[in-house]
Amino acid sequence: MARINEHYLKLKSSYLFVEIARRVKAFQDAHPSAQIIRLGIGDVTRPLPSAVIRALHEAVDEMARPETFRGYGPEPGYEFLTELIAKHDYGARGVSIAPDEIFVSDGTKSDSGNIQEIFAAESVVALTDPVYPVYVDSNVMAGRSGSADEAGRYASFVYLPCTAATGFQPPFPETAVDLVYLCYPNNPTGAVMTRATLKRWVDYARAHGAVLLYDAAYEAYIRDPEIPHSIFEVEGAREVAIEFRSFSKTAGFTGTRCAFTVVPKEVVGRTAGGDAVELNRLWLRRQSTKFNGVPYVIQRGAAAVYSDEGQREVRALVDFYMDNARIIREGLEAAGLTVYGARNAPYIWVQTPPGLSSWDFFDKLLGEAHIVGTPGSGFGPSGEGYFRLTAFGGREQTEEAVARIKARLTR
Amino acid sequence: MARINEHYLKLKSSYLFVEIARRVKAFQDAHPSAQIIRLGIGDVTRPLPSAVIRALHEAVDEMARPETFRGYGPEPGYEFLTELIAKHDYGARGVSIAPDEIFVSDGTKSDSGNIQEIFAAESVVALTDPVYPVYVDSNVMAGRSGSADEAGRYASFVYLPCTAATGFQPPFPETAVDLVYLCYPNNPTGAVMTRATLKRWVDYARAHGAVLLYDAAYEAYIRDPEIPHSIFEVEGAREVAIEFRSFSKTAGFTGTRCAFTVVPKEVVGRTAGGDAVELNRLWLRRQSTKFNGVPYVIQRGAAAVYSDEGQREVRALVDFYMDNARIIREGLEAAGLTVYGARNAPYIWVQTPPGLSSWDFFDKLLGEAHIVGTPGSGFGPSGEGYFRLTAFGGREQTEEAVARIKARLTR
Repeated sequence: MARINEHYLKLKSSYLFVEIARRVKAFQDAHPSAQIIRLGIGDVTRPLPSAVIRALHEAVDEMARPETFRGYGPEPGYEFLTELIAKHDYGARGVSIAPDEIFVSDGTKSDSGNIQEIFAAESVVALTDPVYPVYVDSNVMAGRSGSADEAGRYASFVYLPCTAATGFQPPFPETAVDLVYLCYPNNPTGAVMTRATLKRWVDYARAHGAVLLYDAAYEAYIRDPEIPHSIFEVEGAREVAIEFRSFSKTAGFTGTRCAFTVVPKEVVGRTAGGDAVELNRLWLRRQSTKFNGVPYVIQRGAAAVYSDEGQREVRALVDFYMDNARIIREGLEAAGLTVYGARNAPYIWVQTPPGLSSWDFFDKLLGEAHIVGTPGSGFGPSGEGYFRLTAFGGREQTEEAVARIKARLTR
Repeated sequence: MARINEHYLKLKSSYLFVEIARRVKAFQDAHPSAQIIRLGIGDVTRPLPSAVIRALHEAVDEMARPETFRGYGPEPGYEFLTELIAKHDYGARGVSIAPDEIFVSDGTKSDSGNIQEIFAAESVVALTDPVYPVYVDSNVMAGRSGSADEAGRYASFVYLPCTAATGFQPPFPETAVDLVYLCYPNNPTGAVMTRATLKRWVDYARAHGAVLLYDAAYEAYIRDPEIPHSIFEVEGAREVAIEFRSFSKTAGFTGTRCAFTVVPKEVVGRTAGGDAVELNRLWLRRQSTKFNGVPYVIQRGAAAVYSDEGQREVRALVDFYMDNARIIREGLEAAGLTVYGARNAPYIWVQTPPGLSSWDFFDKLLGEAHIVGTPGSGFGPSGEGYFRLTAFGGREQTEEAVARIKARLTR
């Protein structure tokens, strides 16, 4: 008798984006002429850089000729790409990462969801609150939690509340934890972590034998030169951290799918008997067994991001979205709202007006300004009273959204 | 203290293809002028069909313009592709599969490795022997086995030996099992399963509440019109089977990465309390949480496989490789070897001469004919005494390999 993985049944069924879609559709049906602007989902809108487009075309042509055709590639990625990543994303910032510490993949969602597989089922997981739901759900599915309470907190997980009172910085766990998920620049709050704070986390992990799972998918949006782009800029991190990076929000690869994960040789986990085992070796085994690499064509496209032209184009894309972030931030502040994030991140984290819950504000913004955002409570209980807007829209859309908020939103 | 998933340590470290590479390198170093022909790994060599190349170029151009750019797509695949799959791969064979029963993915390796996640950790797994190693390793990593014995059999797995004595057909399990992995046309033996035998497996699964995990990645190579291409051609299979399909060996996508998995709405697993849960729903949740879809460009390339031109080109590719299979089969038989497979599959399963183990024959073939194949024992203990060659080489290579075997192989 085939039995299911019953941990799946603990997952809260109220999918955030499904509920958003339901409410938007109901509103649109009732107001067919309303021009709805969507600033809810963190998806980019600008086309791929021309350097990437050219590289994709060239690689497609290679696949058309027997002498240049590529079949199975190395599961962790072609060296032409891992060497570029090592040089540009790390070497250029004074960080030494070897190509065989870099694992090219189809997305940070996949990697940050799959990484827990190499750890013991009994691992205690610490999560910021609010949080990117994949870290939570993948651990629920793997059986590391109990059931969720009314507020949506799963038993056995250690939640680290991030609110305005602490500058959206997580407190250190009060009980022993094995794995800590950190995402900076943060989705959804747009907060960043200073070098000093990051160092404290590295020191914490070294002292407690914990592993930091560091999601740096938004590092390109950092404007403050004092903020580290990689956790490996912090001394000692190679012993305790795994880092996730993506081409999604730099070169616009959300529909093109390429990312990478860095697992230094020094970072280890322990057996029950206390023996150290290299996580690099375990992740290689995981990826070699359950993954077959990123399409050759796509890896060539990603490599083109590191050309001079590609780098210029990516900077222009990031600048474009960060201008959107500024426009939204300034507009909302002018409308009397309190706004966080948006300075070193493409997310604008809005405090809802007094008396309005996250979903209340969702309905108000949709009803009065025909703008769709994401209720902060959808990212966790501590997101209640906040609302996320993204800077990834078009310029006209973004300006129009701000104009509507200023003109129509009732106090 | 971060603890590792210690089930990984049970995995046998003697990677088959690593050992092959080591022996080939040693031989090449000792005989630098030897022209080695590789017919070991199941990787294609012919370029992508021109219909696919054209579709890839067009899709790349779409990604270059804001009005046609695509960001995140639906995790289970675009409907333009799932509808084509439903129509051509199933409807055309009289099988009704709905588009939302089809999950587009980056590979059958990923899907057949990941599918076990939706089942209970205590599930009893039945595997053919010899077998595609991913089914084994993914279940070892998930903790469903004990340690491996000397012969390489993991405790708790139920092995179903497939040898010449039974026409490489697995016996039915003698003890209760929950999950049964079947791959037909088979990798590595090249055997196929008749409709009557497949029906007996479906009936077995219905009677015992088991789920059949059916890998049909090589269905395009079936020449015998009586052999089913899909398990869903068999009555009742919708209640008990999940099917894996791939573009790798049809349109040459081994380096382009697109596949799909079919999970009918009727197939269920049970909770400990006996409640039925749709596996389609669980797999959707798994893929939505830990996967972000196949690149838009690649899905457009896969869709072009279903155009008239694409279908003609894929038939020509399969014909080409099947001619290789015939050339190898006839050549080896002329050389006095006993050969299986190669009639409805791209794999040639050679019985090693009396007194020679799989690895002995590997060394002999490499040493005398400078040809690399795969020792059957690498696929499981019942593969001992067999040797796998693949039909995916070039024509000249393949003919030269046969000529060498005829001329040089000592009896």
